[in-house]
Amino acid sequence: MNEKTIQRTGGGVTAPAGFRAGGVAAGIKRGGGLDLALVHSDRPSVAAGAFTTNKVRAAPVGWCRRVVGGRDVRAILANSGNANACTGGQGGMDAAAMAKAAGDALGLAPEQVLVCSTGRIGRALPIERIRRAVPGLVAGAARRGGRLAAEAIMTSDTRSKEAAVRFDLDGVPVRVGGMAKGAGMIDPTMATMLAFLTTDALVERRAWRRLVRDAVIRTFNRISVDGDMSTNDTVLALANGAAGNRQIRAAGDAGYDLLAEAVRAVCARLARMIIEDGEGASRVVDVVVEGAGSDSDALKAARAIGGSQLVKCAWSGGDPNWGRVLCAAGYSGADVVAERMDLDVGGVVLVRGGVEVAGAMAAARRVARRREFRLTLRLNLGEGRAEIWTNDLTPEYVVYNQSE
Amino acid sequence: MNEKTIQRTGGGVTAPAGFRAGGVAAGIKRGGGLDLALVHSDRPSVAAGAFTTNKVRAAPVGWCRRVVGGRDVRAILANSGNANACTGGQGGMDAAAMAKAAGDALGLAPEQVLVCSTGRIGRALPIERIRRAVPGLVAGAARRGGRLAAEAIMTSDTRSKEAAVRFDLDGVPVRVGGMAKGAGMIDPTMATMLAFLTTDALVERRAWRRLVRDAVIRTFNRISVDGDMSTNDTVLALANGAAGNRQIRAAGDAGYDLLAEAVRAVCARLARMIIEDGEGASRVVDVVVEGAGSDSDALKAARAIGGSQLVKCAWSGGDPNWGRVLCAAGYSGADVVAERMDLDVGGVVLVRGGVEVAGAMAAARRVARRREFRLTLRLNLGEGRAEIWTNDLTPEYVVYNQSE
Repeated sequence: MNEKTIQRTGGGVTAPAGFRAGGVAAGIKRGGGLDLALVHSDRPSVAAGAFTTNKVRAAPVGWCRRVVGGRDVRAILANSGNANACTGGQGGMDAAAMAKAAGDALGLAPEQVLVCSTGRIGRALPIERIRRAVPGLVAGAARRGGRLAAEAIMTSDTRSKEAAVRFDLDGVPVRVGGMAKGAGMIDPTMATMLAFLTTDALVERRAWRRLVRDAVIRTFNRISVDGDMSTNDTVLALANGAAGNRQIRAAGDAGYDLLAEAVRAVCARLARMIIEDGEGASRVVDVVVEGAGSDSDALKAARAIGGSQLVKCAWSGGDPNWGRVLCAAGYSGADVVAERMDLDVGGVVLVRGGVEVAGAMAAARRVARRREFRLTLRLNLGEGRAEIWTNDLTPEYVVYNQSE
Repeated sequence: MNEKTIQRTGGGVTAPAGFRAGGVAAGIKRGGGLDLALVHSDRPSVAAGAFTTNKVRAAPVGWCRRVVGGRDVRAILANSGNANACTGGQGGMDAAAMAKAAGDALGLAPEQVLVCSTGRIGRALPIERIRRAVPGLVAGAARRGGRLAAEAIMTSDTRSKEAAVRFDLDGVPVRVGGMAKGAGMIDPTMATMLAFLTTDALVERRAWRRLVRDAVIRTFNRISVDGDMSTNDTVLALANGAAGNRQIRAAGDAGYDLLAEAVRAVCARLARMIIEDGEGASRVVDVVVEGAGSDSDALKAARAIGGSQLVKCAWSGGDPNWGRVLCAAGYSGADVVAERMDLDVGGVVLVRGGVEVAGAMAAARRVARRREFRLTLRLNLGEGRAEIWTNDLTPEYVVYNQSE
């Protein structure tokens, strides 16, 4: 982050001007609690989206893909407690009905409303409860409502996740805000949970889409909890121009890089929060692979390490277990040579040339017992580099997921 | 299995004529116990091997790949307690030293001896202990020593694994025997643990290699415990001709199919034993995918389902969780259409056209609480079929693997 010019601020999706948000309890979650969220721009806005690549897609993903390219996409309605996935033809009708309910209450066409669902798979959405709750949600949405909205999209999350930054563009203050949810079923192949971003920057639609896609690839697509890619993963981003800057039209324009950096900073913060809140996780681990033959090889190795059940079990026991790490790199599909691999755990030089450095294990174990640490594997074959953020696998994760 | 002609018998690698075996405690395992095994043919034999595709390979794998094609490969020396992996240049010298030690005691060249190691990664092999133990091991090897050898290769296994069959070839009795180990770090991409097969059939070297490779692909390569492919996975198979049958020279010859079926039966039994003894596992699940666009698509889907942490956690809770199953098929890379998928759990029709069959869940839960059950996913897109055997993910697995 460019610290001189991009500053973290409080708040989330309503930090940028012209956005209001809210959250209510519509009765979708079995145990009660907030479960319906709205984000709304009071003026025309352009939208960008990134979606799960799972071929079994929830109905709202289909809806969003269809309408996200519209000229004036104005609102997001999202529910927790029910994923509206694997519900047959009914799912598509329910997703459209959600958009219509919010559109009616906001004076918008359904196609101006994006919808998301998260929660249990395979149960029909209680669409009547949503219809009944929408008018109150719309009436109560407020400039300070970002926190309520962030709480209303939580499922197994233990805390809500918001981030925002501000910076100046030609002397005009601009803000980027966001919120996210997701603690399990997280894998780095695409947008990997629900995340909603807002900005009051004035930016051309295609430039905004490109900028958001680049940020997603470098942040949300680099986190992994359990290797399971959800049917619902979605990132949505609205830009409404309320800041009044000169429009950013393309990648070369003044302000594009700054806005891109601000969006990336918000995405990175939210992605980090998701990993820190991973189901049952006791540790956050940054896996860095350097010196690979290519960036793509580095990413393969990093993902295999971060996705290895055995590596993750060892971490939960505070065991750096470099053998399992090298082994995972070996089956990742990346080009590796065992005798060239070096591994550092935190600042500890643990492996050189594929062999344990004598006397290093005790210090490495101290690092691996920390709440957060970094693993750096150097393949010494080229210049390729990748980094992913992941966590450990604990008995608590298994128990949590023994039933829905 | 052709039940009329191929019969299960007792015993393991010493069931076929001309083989003897044994196991001793060489002091490699920290806690003591049998840790050095020998299988020896008293006459010339031909060998076949299948090895891990992990690029980080243990030193013994390199040795075996080099010598397995020899004209008269006579013995296998295997240790548990130390994997001789990730030990730098020393590893190769130690593997060769193991072969030489056994060769000296047996009156063979080192190249007539295959070696395997399993256990901890990253520690130098205590080669002097192995050298000291080999003469006693060779002297004690016996016709009834298969069981001791099977016990000496165990690591986290809770029980030893042996299987044998017999059948008649032109009126001559022929036997195939085998033993295996492996309870964790099991993934179906290649030979997936240690398994040693023997037969007294007379079979030409290339025919034997082809027949063994085909059996491995259809058995050991279809099991999955945790998705981690080891650095040491090896299948070795010796055929010594002691039965006195007319030599089987090629795939078309009389007896080839029968021998192939017998080898496959022994491999299947051993693979099943490995899954039944999976670390911490409480259930064995057969995942069958039918109606895929191709066999390869069916296998992708089956592996994604069997490899999904979330699916495996649900199984350990006795929850059929069809949503997670469809979701895993969706991200497997196989061609799938959510609305066409049917899923049966045991005999229970649970999902039709991507939607839960009303009232079926209670019966499906009863099936999913069994010690073994079968899941059949029909994609209804073509004729492709695949089956894998896997198990559930339990808190006990995680605790077991929190340290080496």
